[in-house]
Amino acid sequence: MAALDVVAGIEGDYLGGVLFSALGKYSHPATAKSRANSVASLKRLAIAAQAKGITIGLEPVNRYESNLINTIDQAVEMIKDIGEPNVKVHIDIYHMNIEEQDLASPIINNAEHIGYVHIGASHRGGLGTGNVDFDELFGALAKINYKGIITFESFSSAIVHPDLSLALAIWRNLWTENKPMALNARKYMVEHIIRANNLA
Amino acid sequence: MAALDVVAGIEGDYLGGVLFSALGKYSHPATAKSRANSVASLKRLAIAAQAKGITIGLEPVNRYESNLINTIDQAVEMIKDIGEPNVKVHIDIYHMNIEEQDLASPIINNAEHIGYVHIGASHRGGLGTGNVDFDELFGALAKINYKGIITFESFSSAIVHPDLSLALAIWRNLWTENKPMALNARKYMVEHIIRANNLA
Ligand SMILES: [Mn+2]
Ligand SMILES: [Mn+2]
Repeated sequence: MAALDVVAGIEGDYLGGVLFSALGKYSHPATAKSRANSVASLKRLAIAAQAKGITIGLEPVNRYESNLINTIDQAVEMIKDIGEPNVKVHIDIYHMNIEEQDLASPIINNAEHIGYVHIGASHRGGLGTGNVDFDELFGALAKINYKGIITFESFSSAIVHPDLSLALAIWRNLWTENKPMALNARKYMVEHIIRANNLA
Repeated sequence: MAALDVVAGIEGDYLGGVLFSALGKYSHPATAKSRANSVASLKRLAIAAQAKGITIGLEPVNRYESNLINTIDQAVEMIKDIGEPNVKVHIDIYHMNIEEQDLASPIINNAEHIGYVHIGASHRGGLGTGNVDFDELFGALAKINYKGIITFESFSSAIVHPDLSLALAIWRNLWTENKPMALNARKYMVEHIIRANNLA
């Protein structure tokens, strides 16, 4: 609820991420009770957000960061249980590369629920190397006619807060300079989006 | 050293895996001192293994399972520091999919160090879905003329020991029956190996 006030304070209209549980490596599977608690909390959050015109995004993350929502299907299931119209799936290709059966069908099958997109390389470094098939991803986004925000994420302990670097297990830095990283990512994204739209 | 005796006891000639540190999500980066301790221990292990005709394999695993060796290059660096001829890299495509720049060049560039191969889907389920480019992998293995063992790994809490399931964050089961899983994996591997060898 405090985060909601921060978003409203900067006139934001979106609050997304791992909002359904604490981020970390769990030592046990999620229980039915913990999932029910999460659904109830998110319902309260979503209703409070409606009054401020804010959309809530649930980000499925890999198995080492949550024991509750690792796939887009699981997020959509939870959104249905929450039952409020302002809750969407916040997808992240880095996590999809680990958890999903492929990079296109979870997006296409859940098109109406996709509210926000994180992209990043499979090793969380710069775009251009790594094992993500970005043509598959951008092809799926073109197919569902996604017009929302696409944000590039990458992590270096030279830039990112130490607590976050440790939580995300950033043990080696693939870059240290912000600016060229961001410019390269923008160029890469634009090229791939144009190509995907031409093919769609 | 106890593990070495077990391997010798069953007349095995190979001991591989995450032998360089405890498997788990670390809350801090590896220090120079912890790496030096690991090198010294592994040197003792390698020398003891030589007397029994056993090869030692170091398996780079993803950032959530080790803060010390996440890439094949890091494993080779450590092997050079250990300086014993019976230490090899034990590669695993599941971890490579997360950590490496691509699936072929780390294998080709470190060809003489590759001693064992784990394959598995990007979600640790069955072969045939997921985001690993197996043609890239098997193409690289054909190129270096790899003739060693290739083992399929997959995890389901229905089969695997509960402690291991929790350590590896197996929160949802993608299968429950061993036999069809193994048969399918064998078929998939053979098809891809034949294709890669025909192309090589
Ligand atoms: Mn993200
Ligand atoms: Mn393995």
